Amino acid sequence: MQTQIASETISTKAVFVKMAISAWEGYNARVKKLLDELNDEHLVAETAPGRNSGVYLIGHLVAITDSLFPILGFGKRLYPELDKTFIESPDKSGLEMPAISELKEYWNNVNAKFSDHISQLPADEWFTRHNNVSEADFAKEPHRNKLNIIINRTNHTSYHLGQLVYLAKNKN
Amino acid sequence: MQTQIASETISTKAVFVKMAISAWEGYNARVKKLLDELNDEHLVAETAPGRNSGVYLIGHLVAITDSLFPILGFGKRLYPELDKTFIESPDKSGLEMPAISELKEYWNNVNAKFSDHISQLPADEWFTRHNNVSEADFAKEPHRNKLNIIINRTNHTSYHLGQLVYLAKNKN
Repeated sequence: MQTQIASETISTKAVFVKMAISAWEGYNARVKKLLDELNDEHLVAETAPGRNSGVYLIGHLVAITDSLFPILGFGKRLYPELDKTFIESPDKSGLEMPAISELKEYWNNVNAKFSDHISQLPADEWFTRHNNVSEADFAKEPHRNKLNIIINRTNHTSYHLGQLVYLAKNKN
Repeated sequence: MQTQIASETISTKAVFVKMAISAWEGYNARVKKLLDELNDEHLVAETAPGRNSGVYLIGHLVAITDSLFPILGFGKRLYPELDKTFIESPDKSGLEMPAISELKEYWNNVNAKFSDHISQLPADEWFTRHNNVSEADFAKEPHRNKLNIIINRTNHTSYHLGQLVYLAKNKN
């Protein structure tokens, strides 16, 4: 009976993990599909007058996902040099940006490697502390775990996807 | 020992519920804050040229949250009449819309009642089947539970929040 309850615990965790990761993968698949549809001319345009350009938002999404590697214990980042232009500075900062073809390649590389790590992390590990919260704070706030990062960053991605779709015709 | 494992299960579930609901409440608080900042002139405007207006998106968000009441077993909907204009039809359909002041009131009413239901649902209940999935499908796909609806609709809200912020100055 004890084993049965313990395995139910594992199964419950696995279900949670699937819920959060399915949402992450689903929204990133929508970004990927949109990127495949948009040409360079679409992507250099502003998403709305005076607002962030497509190219800035793509760089921003790459940099944010890349920044999660050390936070989640997934090892070294691929493109830490993007932070200055795409996280620390706003669009039109005058800082040089990589070519759109390069940014699309970065997006693919970061997301592929991130998905690999995600798929390999055991369910239990997702409920452990991430590296942006101290052990003391985590003891008081156990919801500040690795999976919570995924939930929050999925919302961040969907927020900017809602803006990126304005670069395409007939999408709302 | 058995009790200890069982209570750990409950605690894990409670933590996960907190993660998903915090994200829902957080994004809805951001929508509320934005609504309080925007006047009627801002809200009748398009979020970008040729795109959905603020008023349409607000009606859409009210209608979507309202539609969750029966799906989650929270009882009767408050404003089912909004679906025709704000879910089944696109913006500029020619269908009459409620006044902006009314829509803001609807938004407050729906969200307040929804939050009440959320706060009263026991953690275990969140992992039960929602009413848009059959028992047979749920047996095969246990992640299609009530909490998953919250995770997915939070992403829906953040997607449209990313668009609604374009009605305000200096927000990205």
